[in-house]
Amino acid sequence: MTEPAIHPVLLCGGSGTRLWPLSRKSYPKQFAPLTGDQSLFQQSALRLSGPGYAAPTVVTGSDFRFIVLEQLAGCGLTPARTLIEPAPRNTGPAILAAALDLRARVGDVLMLVAPSDHVIPDAESFRAAVAAAVPAARAGALVTFGIAPDRAETGYGWLELDSPLPPDAPAAPQPLLRFVEKPDAATAQTMLAEGRYLWNAGIFLFSTATIVDAFAAHAPQLMAGAQAAVEGAEADLGFTRLAPEPWAGLEDISVDYAVMERAPGLSVVPFRGKWSDLGGWEAVWRESGPDAEGMVTHGDAVAIDCQDSLLRAEADSQRLVGIGLRDIVAIAMPDAVLVAHKDHAQEVKQAVAALKAAGAPQAEAFPRDHRPWGWFESLALGPRFQVKRIVVHPGAALSLQSHHHRAEHWVVVEGTARVTIGEKVQLVPENESVFIPLGERHRLENPGKLPLTLIEVQTGAYLGEDDIVRHEDVYARGQGAKG
Amino acid sequence: MTEPAIHPVLLCGGSGTRLWPLSRKSYPKQFAPLTGDQSLFQQSALRLSGPGYAAPTVVTGSDFRFIVLEQLAGCGLTPARTLIEPAPRNTGPAILAAALDLRARVGDVLMLVAPSDHVIPDAESFRAAVAAAVPAARAGALVTFGIAPDRAETGYGWLELDSPLPPDAPAAPQPLLRFVEKPDAATAQTMLAEGRYLWNAGIFLFSTATIVDAFAAHAPQLMAGAQAAVEGAEADLGFTRLAPEPWAGLEDISVDYAVMERAPGLSVVPFRGKWSDLGGWEAVWRESGPDAEGMVTHGDAVAIDCQDSLLRAEADSQRLVGIGLRDIVAIAMPDAVLVAHKDHAQEVKQAVAALKAAGAPQAEAFPRDHRPWGWFESLALGPRFQVKRIVVHPGAALSLQSHHHRAEHWVVVEGTARVTIGEKVQLVPENESVFIPLGERHRLENPGKLPLTLIEVQTGAYLGEDDIVRHEDVYARGQGAKG
Repeated sequence: MTEPAIHPVLLCGGSGTRLWPLSRKSYPKQFAPLTGDQSLFQQSALRLSGPGYAAPTVVTGSDFRFIVLEQLAGCGLTPARTLIEPAPRNTGPAILAAALDLRARVGDVLMLVAPSDHVIPDAESFRAAVAAAVPAARAGALVTFGIAPDRAETGYGWLELDSPLPPDAPAAPQPLLRFVEKPDAATAQTMLAEGRYLWNAGIFLFSTATIVDAFAAHAPQLMAGAQAAVEGAEADLGFTRLAPEPWAGLEDISVDYAVMERAPGLSVVPFRGKWSDLGGWEAVWRESGPDAEGMVTHGDAVAIDCQDSLLRAEADSQRLVGIGLRDIVAIAMPDAVLVAHKDHAQEVKQAVAALKAAGAPQAEAFPRDHRPWGWFESLALGPRFQVKRIVVHPGAALSLQSHHHRAEHWVVVEGTARVTIGEKVQLVPENESVFIPLGERHRLENPGKLPLTLIEVQTGAYLGEDDIVRHEDVYARGQGAKG
Repeated sequence: MTEPAIHPVLLCGGSGTRLWPLSRKSYPKQFAPLTGDQSLFQQSALRLSGPGYAAPTVVTGSDFRFIVLEQLAGCGLTPARTLIEPAPRNTGPAILAAALDLRARVGDVLMLVAPSDHVIPDAESFRAAVAAAVPAARAGALVTFGIAPDRAETGYGWLELDSPLPPDAPAAPQPLLRFVEKPDAATAQTMLAEGRYLWNAGIFLFSTATIVDAFAAHAPQLMAGAQAAVEGAEADLGFTRLAPEPWAGLEDISVDYAVMERAPGLSVVPFRGKWSDLGGWEAVWRESGPDAEGMVTHGDAVAIDCQDSLLRAEADSQRLVGIGLRDIVAIAMPDAVLVAHKDHAQEVKQAVAALKAAGAPQAEAFPRDHRPWGWFESLALGPRFQVKRIVVHPGAALSLQSHHHRAEHWVVVEGTARVTIGEKVQLVPENESVFIPLGERHRLENPGKLPLTLIEVQTGAYLGEDDIVRHEDVYARGQGAKG
């Protein structure tokens, strides 16, 4: 066929804390390279690209929109649409909005909805399973994908078939009897033994018309608000911001509760390949391919006499040494370190809550802060001073801004900066510096073709990120706002 | 008495790796605040101060001489003498040199020799034990101090008495039959049960005449070289550098082997207080006073459902979280993290060797580098640039220097700098900066009464510490040398 048959919709809003400190609210796990060199989001987008696939629609939050663009560009993809949720409302409203937008934009087409933080190493087999689901979806079915289970997992929902699946059954749609919520251990054991249950991976194929009709039939309370949010959406630098007011009134509900557990005539395509939602560090250990001793190391980590453990050193500048460990996960970052027994790794949520209660920025903030124009990280913070490394993308510009409480020094260490201070505009080459007095309007731009790296030394009585007055901003951000 | 009766001699040369990453070759464990706010060296010096004690003699290495001065000043002490060993030669030559120097300087006096990396919480009881040893030492005995053992420790040498020590025996000199080398587990168990063995703490009291005579009798091969090293010593900014050539020829031998295991008529004063040489992280855990769950935390460390473990977060800017741990030590620093089972903590030496083989600076170098004039730390290192924080003590000055391969920017963030660049001398106040072109002679001084903090941004093709040409140096350091 010449027309792309399948429109991927990547759900990219979540902010789980189960993989802290690598996954934090300001930089959730789908953006991290947890297995291999590419992030989970990049792997998910690439898995649903190529012949037969249109450019993806991404549904994400405002804080992540530039990371989404950067990461897609980093693997050679351009989104067809990036829908910005004004607030998280779970998968129900997100999928409905994407369907309404896609229908208005392209028509009645097939959409493949997938989370962007799952691991499916065998992308080709997965695309074959999707291809097997196309005829049923074209015929009006709601098709879900079920993972053939290899253990009695209590952390997932399960899908019930009407009969056991032969081990050599081809990937073909089967009638789906019902969705089973996360079971207890005994129930999970029984389901595993019976052979007619699959894991619910939260991946779906259906036509825009079918899913919109299903929402209208089973979750009518969402329809008007979602429609208004899509119709009132505003274009913003290539992003599509759903209208905030109707969106705010929508129920926070998953697509499973809103539609799948109520709709008749569901189909499921079994998938026998490896799959994981990386729901905790124990899963990262398992999916990273432990060696004969059960060990996984990543980065500058050294294991001496260790077994069945995961040692990850995330930064170039840090070494991690493990000695005599059994069933331990250790994740080292320059600002935060987690050491947990594998069986207790789920309790990391409590730890993050405790850090948040103690006011520790590490609970939610990532050391490297991504912005539309590039990123920065704090190198040193002392009384009355802060040092940052700032990297500006080629062609990018920070807002024209001023600060009430701090002066800034910029030393250009790589590339060339165009700096506006007051009325004066100057080029600052490598190894030169400029001084921005307190209160003075200033702007930093990278006019070159290479990244611009500079060291900023701030001095003043108050050095918070919210001491910023934006006078002009190509990224349409407000006073004191990040993003 | 009005004259100080006892001259402390603190041995401060060692560079063990068993407490890596907190203890490294460039900053060994005696300088770290391992138990409480003061370093082990400071605790050791204070323990042997007050009425009846003269100012201490310190025997140390060249790299540590300014740390020694700083730390003594930090607890209100001034050394009578700081002897610099041109190379480490174990405790035999160090004690002999200190005795010869003390005899020449003060006469035939009592010297109390002690390592500077041990923990003895009850300083008053320890001084009482020393006082009990004075008459015997004055009468010409070699008195050692023996720790009443509370476990069958195989990591220490033991001391054999002629009869079991009654539990209520006063601290008084006992005849010492012999030194027992580190025993195997069964022997240690037998010795513990017999009750007439003590641990050898490596602490001694004797007169300068007695110990010099003992070396002459039992280790005559050391006499001429030690004498020449002391007689040829050179004063250097208040330090006393032993003459390198005779010193280089001395045998590397402990005082136990050289003298104590051969000399007749030894005495031992039992000490019933707590003592530890902090020979590994397991010992640090034990000596840090575990709570009811067996937990010790230090710094910004959070323990959730942990038992019998040690969690230390060494830096202000880093959080450490432990979950579900049993018998684990975790030591977090921004550049290096150790996670070890308590029973395997001694294997940290292998880890350090592996890091050294891999060329990792963390094997030996400490992030904060102490220099005569203050300290610096590297904040960021990238291609062609490095950022450092530099703190200069009031009144201190860096050498007049130049670099072949790098230019430098200095931004003053606190205090006032006097900066020489070429022929020009200028004062640089807070929040101003200067640029030092490649090849230009420059000097940085702190003329003020408060510490001077500045951020240095280096740029260039080669940024190693050894790219330094010293034109003048108040601290008498050579080309490319640190210290």
